[in-house]
Amino acid sequence: MVMLKNKKSVAILGSTGSIGTQALRVIRSNEDLFSVFLLSCKTNHELLWEQISYFKPKYAVISSKEGYLFLKNKTRNLSTAVYCGQEALCDLMSHDELNVVLTAVVGSFGLLPTIAAISAKKNIALANKETLVIAGDLIMRLAKKNNVQVFPVDSEHSAIFQCLVGEDLDFVKSITLTASGGPFLNLKKSQFKNISLSDALRHPNWSMGKKITIDSATMMNKGFELIEARWLFGISQKKIKIVVHPQSIVHSFVEFCDGSVKAQLGWPDMTVPIMYSLSFPKRLKSSQKDLDLASVEKLEFFSPDPVRFPHLGLAYRCLDLGGSAACALNAANEVVVEAFLKEKIGFLNMYKIIALSLEKSIFVKNPTLEDYLNVDAETRKTTNKLIYKK
Amino acid sequence: MVMLKNKKSVAILGSTGSIGTQALRVIRSNEDLFSVFLLSCKTNHELLWEQISYFKPKYAVISSKEGYLFLKNKTRNLSTAVYCGQEALCDLMSHDELNVVLTAVVGSFGLLPTIAAISAKKNIALANKETLVIAGDLIMRLAKKNNVQVFPVDSEHSAIFQCLVGEDLDFVKSITLTASGGPFLNLKKSQFKNISLSDALRHPNWSMGKKITIDSATMMNKGFELIEARWLFGISQKKIKIVVHPQSIVHSFVEFCDGSVKAQLGWPDMTVPIMYSLSFPKRLKSSQKDLDLASVEKLEFFSPDPVRFPHLGLAYRCLDLGGSAACALNAANEVVVEAFLKEKIGFLNMYKIIALSLEKSIFVKNPTLEDYLNVDAETRKTTNKLIYKK
Repeated sequence: MVMLKNKKSVAILGSTGSIGTQALRVIRSNEDLFSVFLLSCKTNHELLWEQISYFKPKYAVISSKEGYLFLKNKTRNLSTAVYCGQEALCDLMSHDELNVVLTAVVGSFGLLPTIAAISAKKNIALANKETLVIAGDLIMRLAKKNNVQVFPVDSEHSAIFQCLVGEDLDFVKSITLTASGGPFLNLKKSQFKNISLSDALRHPNWSMGKKITIDSATMMNKGFELIEARWLFGISQKKIKIVVHPQSIVHSFVEFCDGSVKAQLGWPDMTVPIMYSLSFPKRLKSSQKDLDLASVEKLEFFSPDPVRFPHLGLAYRCLDLGGSAACALNAANEVVVEAFLKEKIGFLNMYKIIALSLEKSIFVKNPTLEDYLNVDAETRKTTNKLIYKK
Repeated sequence: MVMLKNKKSVAILGSTGSIGTQALRVIRSNEDLFSVFLLSCKTNHELLWEQISYFKPKYAVISSKEGYLFLKNKTRNLSTAVYCGQEALCDLMSHDELNVVLTAVVGSFGLLPTIAAISAKKNIALANKETLVIAGDLIMRLAKKNNVQVFPVDSEHSAIFQCLVGEDLDFVKSITLTASGGPFLNLKKSQFKNISLSDALRHPNWSMGKKITIDSATMMNKGFELIEARWLFGISQKKIKIVVHPQSIVHSFVEFCDGSVKAQLGWPDMTVPIMYSLSFPKRLKSSQKDLDLASVEKLEFFSPDPVRFPHLGLAYRCLDLGGSAACALNAANEVVVEAFLKEKIGFLNMYKIIALSLEKSIFVKNPTLEDYLNVDAETRKTTNKLIYKK
């Protein structure tokens, strides 16, 4: 019984997605260390049901009404209580038995549950970068006030976090996020207009969800990571660099004032960032094969091309503007990516529509949470209008 | 006056050598943090005099009688007291005002002063790897007993040390020392017999003293670093790997049990390791240009070739044997490198003579300091006999 008390009780928001399922694999391999408190997803009730029957969480929350009815019926003889919708999810974030919340949902949906969890002094393992893109300033101030740690699950930010262990932020000169460059790293500008949806979904190194795969193809993802890093590490965007590294072995690095650079490396696999976000400051054993650099042959580094990948510039610009600018950027991007995934617009239109939408979006200098939600909603409307010309 | 009390008072053993002069440059740029307590060298009295007149140390020690007389005369109106020989040097290591000893001498000469300094509870900045090659077990036990920290100045070991900051040794799976491969990395085996002294002195990346440059050409240096790492980090040789990395940008790395790898990178320049050994846990500002990986083009990694570079195998074998084996290896190597530098023997003879000498050398399983000194002296005699057939 003493052993059981030491287990970390984990909530996974977005348990049926790419990060969620990998996180459950980590927990399954370390059942002496973790227990599953809550699982949640948007619509994939079949998989959520499988997860519930194996992990027997205290709670399960699903967004879809149909999924809720399905699970309610399935769990009638289980101890798992099933709820529907974001409000129930937010309420459960303050449960006494919960220790850490892994937010692995896609897009702005993660914002409110993350705020609820931080307000209830729960540590966060953050895989939902949009939360910090939208309201990084507010989130990190709230975390500080509540003495909450936000552990990054993005491979780049986990790399920076690992490189900063035992180091003093005052001695950091810059941090550099590496970017694979995505599937179009070497594509000529003139060819970009012919990019199809299936081209864009074919990432060379990482197997991820659809939305982030498209964001990687446009490099919007790297722009979001820039914004995420700015808030997560409390470091000015002037000190954040981006370098293209096609092999995705060096996950990111930190340069210190003495000229020393520390980098974190590994195979392109999310297991390390997920494990570390849950086990910090300890490290868990993994059965992964050793990183044999002699077998990798070479590691290459290039400057990113701002002409073919203009999304990066949008991210820097929004950070310079501050306030609600990045929130609008995220909202516009979510809408255009969804439209691209539905093949309503072409690849190049994504950038054009975001840029137009940002011009038209409202801007709040010192936004409250309500302002953020308002900017998010308004920008979505504007962007949808631009796409569907309604 | 309060400011002055906070200065670290540094002794530099081997101040006229490559590391010594670079260390004095670091001190010169950070005169608010460091003061020079003692400078010592073997024979270069002209340069030592220049250093004395600039830094005005409390003490200066020189090995050569001629140099001693020269300095005695020069310093007659200065407050610097000049001494001659190793005994005086060892005595001064216990001086109350001394804080940290940078041992940057070449070869076995560093052993006794390092022991004297550790016994007097002075922290060590260790650039003299031979000290740990000869008597690593004894030195590290003594350091532990006296609560003394041994900070590595070798770039590889400084890299490992930096990667381990804030980490728990229990979670380390392996450490990997990178090797430039030296000037003969791509030379065919059949050409090795034609290697001249000037060929061997032409290191592609690092500007160093002559002895270590030859050790790099044979890769004996990497073998010594393996032994040094084994003692410095208290890690089994089975967990220490070597990988050839011709660009000398990744200075070494650590793999953890979760599959994460942390590496330390930088331009090939000893300033970072020297600074960090003196400033730890702080980092000092350096005017070095940023490490721009995009300008480096590529980083390559290869397995070392045990056929063309058999010295590496000697180092692993001596660690497996334990006891005084590595001490004998170092003594034999010092003698053959000196003979090669005097052009008494060819490049390939260095390995042959060391291997023969090790076969003939005495072996002590649990050596005391006296045993080490005895093995050192006897092996030198044996090796000299093999070279000069006397």
